[in-house]
Amino acid sequence: MTVLADTSFDFASLQAAFASGYSAADAVEEAYRRIALANDPGIFIHLRRKEDVLAEAHALPPFDPERFPLWGLPFAIKDNIDLAGVPTTAACPAFAYTAEADSFVVNLLRKAGAIPVGKTNLDQFATGLVGVRTPYPVPKNALDPAIVPGGSSSGSAVAVARGLVSFALGTDTAGSGRVPAALNNIVGLKPTLGALSATGVVPACRTLDTISIFALTVPDAWRVFSAAARYDDADGYSKRVVAPRMGAAESALRVGVPSAATRQFFGDTVQEQAFADTLARLSYLGATLVELDFKPFFDVAAMLYEGAWVAERMAAVETFMRERPDEIHPVTRQIIGAANRLSAADAFRGIYRLADLRRSAEGLMTGIDLLCVPTIPTFYTLADLEADPVTPNSRLGTYTNFVNLMDLCGIAVPTGLRADGRPSGVTLLARAGQDARAAAVAKGLHEDALPMLGATQLQVRPGDLGNPRPDPDECVIAVVGAHMSGLPLNHMLTELGGWFLESARTAADYRLYALPGGPPQRPGLLRSASGSTIALELWALPLRGLGPLLASVPGPLSIGSVTLSDDRCVKGFLMEAHAAEASDDITHFGGWRAYLASR
Amino acid sequence: MTVLADTSFDFASLQAAFASGYSAADAVEEAYRRIALANDPGIFIHLRRKEDVLAEAHALPPFDPERFPLWGLPFAIKDNIDLAGVPTTAACPAFAYTAEADSFVVNLLRKAGAIPVGKTNLDQFATGLVGVRTPYPVPKNALDPAIVPGGSSSGSAVAVARGLVSFALGTDTAGSGRVPAALNNIVGLKPTLGALSATGVVPACRTLDTISIFALTVPDAWRVFSAAARYDDADGYSKRVVAPRMGAAESALRVGVPSAATRQFFGDTVQEQAFADTLARLSYLGATLVELDFKPFFDVAAMLYEGAWVAERMAAVETFMRERPDEIHPVTRQIIGAANRLSAADAFRGIYRLADLRRSAEGLMTGIDLLCVPTIPTFYTLADLEADPVTPNSRLGTYTNFVNLMDLCGIAVPTGLRADGRPSGVTLLARAGQDARAAAVAKGLHEDALPMLGATQLQVRPGDLGNPRPDPDECVIAVVGAHMSGLPLNHMLTELGGWFLESARTAADYRLYALPGGPPQRPGLLRSASGSTIALELWALPLRGLGPLLASVPGPLSIGSVTLSDDRCVKGFLMEAHAAEASDDITHFGGWRAYLASR
Repeated sequence: MTVLADTSFDFASLQAAFASGYSAADAVEEAYRRIALANDPGIFIHLRRKEDVLAEAHALPPFDPERFPLWGLPFAIKDNIDLAGVPTTAACPAFAYTAEADSFVVNLLRKAGAIPVGKTNLDQFATGLVGVRTPYPVPKNALDPAIVPGGSSSGSAVAVARGLVSFALGTDTAGSGRVPAALNNIVGLKPTLGALSATGVVPACRTLDTISIFALTVPDAWRVFSAAARYDDADGYSKRVVAPRMGAAESALRVGVPSAATRQFFGDTVQEQAFADTLARLSYLGATLVELDFKPFFDVAAMLYEGAWVAERMAAVETFMRERPDEIHPVTRQIIGAANRLSAADAFRGIYRLADLRRSAEGLMTGIDLLCVPTIPTFYTLADLEADPVTPNSRLGTYTNFVNLMDLCGIAVPTGLRADGRPSGVTLLARAGQDARAAAVAKGLHEDALPMLGATQLQVRPGDLGNPRPDPDECVIAVVGAHMSGLPLNHMLTELGGWFLESARTAADYRLYALPGGPPQRPGLLRSASGSTIALELWALPLRGLGPLLASVPGPLSIGSVTLSDDRCVKGFLMEAHAAEASDDITHFGGWRAYLASR
Repeated sequence: MTVLADTSFDFASLQAAFASGYSAADAVEEAYRRIALANDPGIFIHLRRKEDVLAEAHALPPFDPERFPLWGLPFAIKDNIDLAGVPTTAACPAFAYTAEADSFVVNLLRKAGAIPVGKTNLDQFATGLVGVRTPYPVPKNALDPAIVPGGSSSGSAVAVARGLVSFALGTDTAGSGRVPAALNNIVGLKPTLGALSATGVVPACRTLDTISIFALTVPDAWRVFSAAARYDDADGYSKRVVAPRMGAAESALRVGVPSAATRQFFGDTVQEQAFADTLARLSYLGATLVELDFKPFFDVAAMLYEGAWVAERMAAVETFMRERPDEIHPVTRQIIGAANRLSAADAFRGIYRLADLRRSAEGLMTGIDLLCVPTIPTFYTLADLEADPVTPNSRLGTYTNFVNLMDLCGIAVPTGLRADGRPSGVTLLARAGQDARAAAVAKGLHEDALPMLGATQLQVRPGDLGNPRPDPDECVIAVVGAHMSGLPLNHMLTELGGWFLESARTAADYRLYALPGGPPQRPGLLRSASGSTIALELWALPLRGLGPLLASVPGPLSIGSVTLSDDRCVKGFLMEAHAAEASDDITHFGGWRAYLASR
């Protein structure tokens, strides 16, 4: 037994161990011990030699999580993503090639200090949501071996759920980064398309693919995303996507959910109840639920396999499939082979129809900040898939297939156990680029539910859910005079949609002046080498209101940046220095209200 | 002869006539008189009954150009765009159907007071750039009947050039809204894709099509665009595109042009010289020319007919083509029929290749505000097309084919006469959504050249719009640094709907500092007892954009009031006085551009 045998592989636990002196090599030793103990030959298609991985761990610079946010964290890579020097099989041995270089994302993760241990099993060519369409042994579901592991990123999800690695990369076209997360009780982050480069990834549907991230907690997944989201000039579909620090969940979000009439659980009433329970918690946590007719989303979803996009899978493997058809899994061959019947004109007709269907579904989302859907409608056993290899697979994609076709981002998150002990979970979906918004709500739900982490027997630790915060389309503005509560110009803030946040003070180097003129009489705030701390109020104001507010401000006043006593920096009223001469210095009052009270 | 026989049909002339008491019916009478006089059966496929058009003119509310900006202006419509109650033929009689309703754009133009007189000839199914691929008589080029009229929007361009109507609608996929403009010496505005709804338009390549606008002057084309650019929920490709009022051309724009080595004129040295002359004028007017290797743009262009997009044309007419192939023009049938060899996988491979090629071409445009290209590389005669119906057509698309594939917008504008008396012209191209920027530069070039308007024997009048002023819901903002034209933060102003007003200077008591930090490097403006006058730019900005702009401004910068050298007071960027100590005083340079140039 190694020194880290009792340490969870979530980031906080492992980083605490590193901070107390354990080494990255200790983590590698423990990962390999757990992999051996797990005794599931279906998880990894290729495990690196332990000596090589230990050498990589020893070669790391000293532990410094600021510079290397993923320092020493062992991770696994779905076997359709290149790792230098290791074969990439896409779960098709005859297709395999040895990668000459790391994929763009793996390279970034290694630069951030993470250590790859091996390549994981998948539904061949990432075509499937079940995890059984592989010529290798099927990975066992981490919680119940009778249930399918989910796919296509089966091995990556199981490796994280069983605590073998700290995180893993998957890919997601139809739901391959979310369905196995739900089936194994872990977090599955499906980024905005283009946020993570596809350089060094075997394409499934190149216009719809993304690398995805499995982890035990939402902040863990988010840290990987933050390290990996970089623009790649070599990928024609790469986009510049902002990965800010994840804040607390916003208050008063409007969350669209499938209406009761359009929810689909294929007879699984336990799942139906679990979803209803989660929505109740989401509402309790402050969200406003809006029931939506989900038919337009299901119509979009149908395009993925019934429409032209199967031809993208063909485009990816056409030469191989023509030359060596017998090397392809029979179910996979049948699915991709359907593309032979489709002409280029069919492809464009599919593209047009998608544009129209998307428009309908997007129309429903007007005024909606997020969607919340079950990640999977129900569970299927290995026996179910033997009896019918296609129908259960299709049904598992009920709430995932439309997502990339609509360019939404999302994150699948566990929300506790169902009445029968199986894991329940939902996916939060947001518009492209709003990954942080979805993740913040997912974190809140996860910490509210406090479920077991994967199959590790450990619980998530609750974090700080925070106070109400301004929406992304609002700004915080500091007012020091007539715009404060109860004073003559306060109505301007409220009429422009502003709301009071808190009372606060400036940093200690400001001066306050009573300006000539009025009514209303007004003060001016000036940063100065010798100053004091001045009382103010912070208001949240919609960005669209900031323009009219500014337009109403006469010289010598302006709106700039004000530093607060706790070092926060917010927008706020300032005055031009040249006007100080004609004004009274009232700094010693400490604020406008005290000055007014003295008169 | 009617009362308006001597009045040009450009907007200013006709509106002046309306203001002095002439009626819309007078304009209609004159249009029909000119159409009869033109005696070209190739221009219109369907001319409305004059009585019907006169009735529509009589039914207009009283002349009020503020409420009805296109009041009384007769216009023509390419015959692949629906006009209620009239057949839409797409120049294929067997394909024709009678439109039940106006297309979305025609409806908007009628609401703005414009009066449609008829439907114009085109290359069948908008497939061609020559104007001769039609079963109807070929419209005569307005300037030289030996030359092809250009297509596919042949009839619309000729109708405007001959002064028969005030403006006309075309469509543009490969260049159909620009090539005939160049061949007939008029303005051809090719909007950002999605700005004008495609509802009620026969598609050519639905992902690449747009309605386009022909007019005698740039402001005329712009007014039509402003009236027609509205979001259409029923069109899956409609986009919300800002159509602000067109300002003056910005100073110091960086304009990319084909390098001498990659310019293609197919031996036409007169055209080569004309283009060089126009670039010299553009440079004289203040643009900085940047020579670009144009090969990546030509590579993109090649995708349009050699790649998968021909299958979009097939998707539009497949049933008709299968059932009644003999009804299709033989050249058109041959071109579209090439799609029969393409599979859906081929289509997606084409889409991927375009994404990669676009990325290369877009990389070249980093730091470039506009492109300026010849609209056509040379001229072809009807005899040339009889000898070879394909090659001249392909060559005419040299500088137009890549534009919609790259989602650029553009405007073709005449720039005077070549040495041999043929019309010369260029196209200004900008990124999607920056139609106003391209139009402002085109207007400047047009008014600098003062060419004849089309074939009307009349000249454009300079500055016939006067100096545009901000609307009541816009404010004027003074920028002194990185937000000025061509500098790194200028995009913030244009993205927020800002438009350039003028260059100006502060009053004589300001100081300018180079702030520490960056990139981008930024100056700060401070009012001071001892100062100087500082160069700045005035931009008009919608009030709703002022908030987002202010939110993006870091301390020590603020937005307050700036006094100009002519005593006007406008909003503008300022700095806090306390930051002067850590900054370099660069007041003596007189402005940020002069400072940058000195380094």
